[in-house]
Amino acid sequence: MLPDREFFDRLADAAKAETLPRFRTGISVANKEAAGFDPVTEGDRAAEAAIRALIEAHFPDHGILGEEFGNVGLDRDYVWVIDPIDGTRAFISGLPVWGTLIGLYHKGEAVMGLMDQPFTGERYFADGKAAHYRGPGGNKVIATRPCADLSQAILFTTSPHLYTGDIKTRFEAVQSKVQLARYGCDCYAFALLASGHIDLVIECGLKPYDVGGLIPLIEQAGGIVTDWNGGPAEMGGEIIAAGSPEIHAQALAILKG
Amino acid sequence: MLPDREFFDRLADAAKAETLPRFRTGISVANKEAAGFDPVTEGDRAAEAAIRALIEAHFPDHGILGEEFGNVGLDRDYVWVIDPIDGTRAFISGLPVWGTLIGLYHKGEAVMGLMDQPFTGERYFADGKAAHYRGPGGNKVIATRPCADLSQAILFTTSPHLYTGDIKTRFEAVQSKVQLARYGCDCYAFALLASGHIDLVIECGLKPYDVGGLIPLIEQAGGIVTDWNGGPAEMGGEIIAAGSPEIHAQALAILKG
Repeated sequence: MLPDREFFDRLADAAKAETLPRFRTGISVANKEAAGFDPVTEGDRAAEAAIRALIEAHFPDHGILGEEFGNVGLDRDYVWVIDPIDGTRAFISGLPVWGTLIGLYHKGEAVMGLMDQPFTGERYFADGKAAHYRGPGGNKVIATRPCADLSQAILFTTSPHLYTGDIKTRFEAVQSKVQLARYGCDCYAFALLASGHIDLVIECGLKPYDVGGLIPLIEQAGGIVTDWNGGPAEMGGEIIAAGSPEIHAQALAILKG
Repeated sequence: MLPDREFFDRLADAAKAETLPRFRTGISVANKEAAGFDPVTEGDRAAEAAIRALIEAHFPDHGILGEEFGNVGLDRDYVWVIDPIDGTRAFISGLPVWGTLIGLYHKGEAVMGLMDQPFTGERYFADGKAAHYRGPGGNKVIATRPCADLSQAILFTTSPHLYTGDIKTRFEAVQSKVQLARYGCDCYAFALLASGHIDLVIECGLKPYDVGGLIPLIEQAGGIVTDWNGGPAEMGGEIIAAGSPEIHAQALAILKG
């Protein structure tokens, strides 16, 4: 039995109960990696624990791949892919473009997914067939928008400083061709793409949980998401998401190198 | 007679009635400058017209400096400084970090100010003495946060690509010293600073209306905002806003060159 929308909502609500009260409170931030700046809040850990508890209670035969508490049963048919707070840097800056990401993979393919932004009250959900939005803009089925040429495209990436060497050269070659490039939005950019406001998201060095919950949203809204070789995005890495086949093909031709 | 909070709210509500219904609607965008990408929506113009009509009706002896419809009576004691949609690139991308900015100058000094983000429902207002927040986080008086050293500071700027030449070198020297640097937030970053979530905002090439409504918010929340020489910020240009005297001094020492 597959989980339904109500179950995804329970997961998102459980996460929200742990994240939102800690947002903009100036709570202490722990450095996850001593070598760099990789903050993770208590909310991150508490939210993932809450999500995992519900999954383990209702779908004990499913696997779980999570950011905070490791992996269980990745060889099972169904695997949940969880990032309790994607965009921790946005979170600690008070900027409401972070989100809770919950994806469900079936035999390695992302089939259902959810992105929740508790502060703005926006929730995006892909049920296996269509992508849905609920929020201040109402409730609706969402779709990516047509865009025929990179010169008309709006591109988002989290930060230009994440790229080095050859992938930096290729990213900048795409960036030089678009109408508008913006930085800094993590998962929120993928949601804007799924709902037809922007045309292209390019990222590098993603983990599976950074993208797993977003793949169904993009695909079921009519978009395309792959790695920079045109292969599956489910395992992360260098990722491109596009709202139209034309934009995907034009950007991929450059990113492939 | 000075305007009160109720009047500022009327201005912000009048602007919101023109901007919010046009947000995320895919409405056509006109290029204001043929040479570059400087979009302005119908909402931008309609919102400024609505604000100006109220000011002209209630304070006919005040001057107005606006982004869209030019300047009137800049030599008068009181001058309103208006940016109906600061962050037009965010607006056309569907990203709710744009805002309506309304400032009131007295003899060249910014004394009252408002920033409104209609989609998230956040409104920041400086009444001449204190800075106030209303929004999903409740209603409260806001304050900047203490931060003693750049190495602990969170810095925002709209885009690293706006800097060239010597000011680029100086900006990057500051950026290299902070804990975390983020891009892409226009006026929303100043509001995050005024409410104590981040420590430093640096911008270049601002117009008076990009900053006029924000100066009172920052100052009355306990922060400091000047140009890169430590002089008044009211006329725009290269601007630094800091939440604490230490951060302002440390960053300014580098930006002064």
